[in-house]
Amino acid sequence: MTTQLPRPDTLSPAALAALQARFGEQLSTAQAVLDAHGRDESRQESALPHAVLFALSEADVVDALRLAGEYRFPVVPFAVGSSLEGQVVPVRGGLSLDVSGMNAVLDVQPGGFQATVQPGVTYPELNRQLRARGLFFPVDPGAEASLGGMASTNASGTAAVRYGTTRDNVLELRVALASGEVIRVGSKARKTSAGYDLKHLFIGAEGTLGVITELTVKLWPLPAHLVVLRAHFESVGAAAECAVGIMGAALQPERLELIDEHQIHAVNVHKGTDFPEAPTLWIELASPSRTALDEALQLCRELVTDAGGQGLHAAHSAEERARLWEARHHAYYALTALHPGHVNLTTDLCAPLHHLPALVDFTRREADRAGLHASLVGHVGDGNFHVLLHAPPDDTATWEKIRAVYDAMITETLARGGTCSGEHGVGLHKRAYLAREHADTLDLMRGLKQLLDPRGLLNPGKILP
Amino acid sequence: MTTQLPRPDTLSPAALAALQARFGEQLSTAQAVLDAHGRDESRQESALPHAVLFALSEADVVDALRLAGEYRFPVVPFAVGSSLEGQVVPVRGGLSLDVSGMNAVLDVQPGGFQATVQPGVTYPELNRQLRARGLFFPVDPGAEASLGGMASTNASGTAAVRYGTTRDNVLELRVALASGEVIRVGSKARKTSAGYDLKHLFIGAEGTLGVITELTVKLWPLPAHLVVLRAHFESVGAAAECAVGIMGAALQPERLELIDEHQIHAVNVHKGTDFPEAPTLWIELASPSRTALDEALQLCRELVTDAGGQGLHAAHSAEERARLWEARHHAYYALTALHPGHVNLTTDLCAPLHHLPALVDFTRREADRAGLHASLVGHVGDGNFHVLLHAPPDDTATWEKIRAVYDAMITETLARGGTCSGEHGVGLHKRAYLAREHADTLDLMRGLKQLLDPRGLLNPGKILP
Repeated sequence: MTTQLPRPDTLSPAALAALQARFGEQLSTAQAVLDAHGRDESRQESALPHAVLFALSEADVVDALRLAGEYRFPVVPFAVGSSLEGQVVPVRGGLSLDVSGMNAVLDVQPGGFQATVQPGVTYPELNRQLRARGLFFPVDPGAEASLGGMASTNASGTAAVRYGTTRDNVLELRVALASGEVIRVGSKARKTSAGYDLKHLFIGAEGTLGVITELTVKLWPLPAHLVVLRAHFESVGAAAECAVGIMGAALQPERLELIDEHQIHAVNVHKGTDFPEAPTLWIELASPSRTALDEALQLCRELVTDAGGQGLHAAHSAEERARLWEARHHAYYALTALHPGHVNLTTDLCAPLHHLPALVDFTRREADRAGLHASLVGHVGDGNFHVLLHAPPDDTATWEKIRAVYDAMITETLARGGTCSGEHGVGLHKRAYLAREHADTLDLMRGLKQLLDPRGLLNPGKILP
Repeated sequence: MTTQLPRPDTLSPAALAALQARFGEQLSTAQAVLDAHGRDESRQESALPHAVLFALSEADVVDALRLAGEYRFPVVPFAVGSSLEGQVVPVRGGLSLDVSGMNAVLDVQPGGFQATVQPGVTYPELNRQLRARGLFFPVDPGAEASLGGMASTNASGTAAVRYGTTRDNVLELRVALASGEVIRVGSKARKTSAGYDLKHLFIGAEGTLGVITELTVKLWPLPAHLVVLRAHFESVGAAAECAVGIMGAALQPERLELIDEHQIHAVNVHKGTDFPEAPTLWIELASPSRTALDEALQLCRELVTDAGGQGLHAAHSAEERARLWEARHHAYYALTALHPGHVNLTTDLCAPLHHLPALVDFTRREADRAGLHASLVGHVGDGNFHVLLHAPPDDTATWEKIRAVYDAMITETLARGGTCSGEHGVGLHKRAYLAREHADTLDLMRGLKQLLDPRGLLNPGKILP
C-alpha cells in the first residue's frame, strides 16, 4: 500500500524549458514515465518527479547537474529502481536522472581482473559478457540491479561471504558532483595509499554526494567445481550455530544461507518442491579440483551432522544447484505471495558473526512473544539476516507490535556491535535508525554533505535525518 | 643523510606547562627522546618536537588534543616510527603523541573472526597472542609496525595478494578528533550500508584527520598446508609475465614476490645463501589439505615451467619457508648494506596487474639508459613493486638522473591507471606526486581537512601539498 507524497514546486517552468532545450527527446514529462520513476521496490511511498531525463553520457549527467545548480532543482539518480528503502523516490520532486541508458561495458581486462562500465550496466548483463572469459562479478543482490545503484547502496547478497560487498569490489569511480565537475576517485591499481580515500565516501552514499558516471570493478575467476549441501535443523538457532561453526572451520563457503521453515513452506507452495519444512542451511562450496571439493564436502558433512543437521543432501549438477538458488532468490516473493494485500517489513540487521545465534534466538522469542508471524532468511555467513514481518495495512494493533519488535531487534543488534543495515541502505526508511547507530557522527556526515552539495540538490531527504 | 629541519615556535611555555600539569612523567622533553621522535625509517629529514607525550589511554589522547586546540600547537601521532615517507616527522614542532604504550589487545572473538586492539599493538605481537587459536592478522608490512600506524598509512606487504591491505582488514575504529570528541566509525559487523562510510577517511589519512585510539580488525584462519615454490627467469619482464599468469590461473597464492638478480646477490652476500643470481619468483601456496596442496603445486610448476622458469624448488618445511621469507624481508637492508653511505630512494608504484610486465620492462630500460644501478623487488601479485635507486649524497649528477627516471616511471604508471603509492603512503616525500595523481580531487581533500581539522594542528605538512 503505497502512500503518495505531495510534490513541492521545485522545478520551475524556466528550468523545465532549459532542460527541454538541452535534452530534447531525452527528457520526458509523460505521466507513465513520471509514475515509473516515483517509486522503488519497497512500494511504501511514491512521489512524482517533475521530469525524467534519460541520460546517455557523462556529459548529459554533467549538464543536468549544472542546470540543477543554476535553477536550483533536486536531482534524483535512478537506474533500475530496485532499491528497498525508498532511495530513488523523489520526495522533493525535481529531476529523476535515469542512467539506465548508460549501459556500456567500456573495457574488460582479464589479466588485470577488472572491467570498466557505465553505471546503468546491470550485474547479470556484465556477467553474461564475462562468462566466455571464465570471469565474473560476484556481488549478487538480486533484482537485475545496476552497478551504479549497487555502488550507491553498497549492495551485497548471497556471495558476499566469499567475495565481499560492492564496496570491496569497486576499484575506481568517476563521479559528477553538484558543482558540475567530474572527479576520479580510487585507482585501477589493486592497492593505493595515495591521499585521502574519497572513493568510499561515494560508495553507499545513495546518490546524495554525487552521481556515479563510471565504475571500474574487480572481477574474479568463475569457480571450477561447486556443490551445494543442504540440511535442516530443529531450530533456527541451531542452524545459525552450525553456520558459525562452518565459518570457523575455514571452509570458505561460496554461499551460506539460512532459510526458516516458513520460507521453505512458501517455496514449496510456489515452486512445487518438497523440501522439509524446517530451518535449513544451504551451503555452497567451491574448489579448484574435484578431489579438493570432495574433501571439503566431507568435512562440511561432518560439521553439519555434529551440529544436528538432518536430511543432508548434496547437489552437484549445475542444474540442481541453479534450481536451489533460484528457489532461494524467490523465497521472499513466495512468502509475500502467501499473504497478498499485507504490507511487508523486511529487516536487514547485521551483527558480528559470534553474536548471530543469540540474535536469531532473540528475534524468534520477541516475535513469538508478540504473537507475530515472523519468518527469517539470511546471509548467515556474514551475520546478516532478514526477518519478514507483515500485517494488513489497517491492522494498527499488529503494526504497533511489529514496530516494537523491530525496535527491540535494532536495540539488541546495536548493543552487540551490529548495524541497522547490512545491505539495503538507509534511504528514507532507516534514517531514525541511522541516527541511533551513528549518533556521534551525524554532524560529520552533515558536514560532508554540506561540503559536496551545499545547496542540498542531490537526492534530498535521503540518509540524513 | 638526514637533513635537520628548523623548528618553529609552535608550543609556548604556557602550553608546555599545561601539558606537564596534566601529564606529569608521561611528558618528556629530554633530548634523546625528542631525537627519537624526530625521524622515521626514511631518515631523509628530521625535525624535533617540543615535547613527547607517552599516552596510555584514550583519555590521554583526548586531553592532549584539547590542549592542542586551546594552545594551538601541532600534534603528530607516533608509535613505532617505521614510516617511510616522513609521516611522523614533526616538521612544525609541537607535540609528538606517542601511543606505543596503548598496546593492549582488548578483546578477541575467534567465532567472529575479529579482535579489538589499542593502536600501539604491533601486528607481530597480536599474532603471537592469536597463534594458539589458529588465527592471525595477515597484513605484514615488516618492521614490527603498529596497527594504528598501519591503518594510518594503509600499509600492506607480501600477504596482501591473498588477504588485502590494512584498509580491507579494519572493521571499526575509534578516532579522537581535533575537536576533542571521540567518534566510532565503521561497524564490528562484517557488512554495513548505514550512512556515509567515514571509516575509510581515517584509514590512510596518516594522522592528519584524527588520532586512532582503538581498532577492531579482521582475523583469518592460519593456513593449514603451505609450500613455497621458487624459480628464476631470464629477465624481470619474464618473471613478471609469469606472475600475471599465476594470478590468471586462479591459484590464489598466499604470497607472490619478485626479487631481481641484484637483490638476490645482496641476500646471498648477507645471508650466506647461494640462490641463483637471476630474477626470481617466490610463490607461496596454501590449501586445506595436503592432497589439494599437491594439486595446486603441480599446476603452479607447470605454469612456471611454461613461462620459462628454471631451477624450480619447492620448500615444504616450516623452517625452510621461514628462511626464505626472512631473506625476502631483509632483501632491502641487505642491498643497502652493499653501498653504505649512499642515500636510497625506494619507489612504491602500483599498477593494474595487466600493466605490470610492461611497467617492469619500462623501469629496467629507463634505468639502464640512464646508467643507473636500479634493483627491483615486489609484491607482483598486486602489481606493486619497489625499485631501489641509490647514489652518494653529493653526487648531484646521478641524483638528477635518478629523479628524472623516477619521474618518468611515475608518468608511465599514472598513464596506465596506477598509483604513485601502493603502500608506503604520501607523508612528506610524495606530496608532489599526489598532486599529479589526484589533481582533480586535491581541493576536495583540502575541504575534508578543513572540516575535520580547521586549525591545521593534526600532523601538519603531510599528504596535502
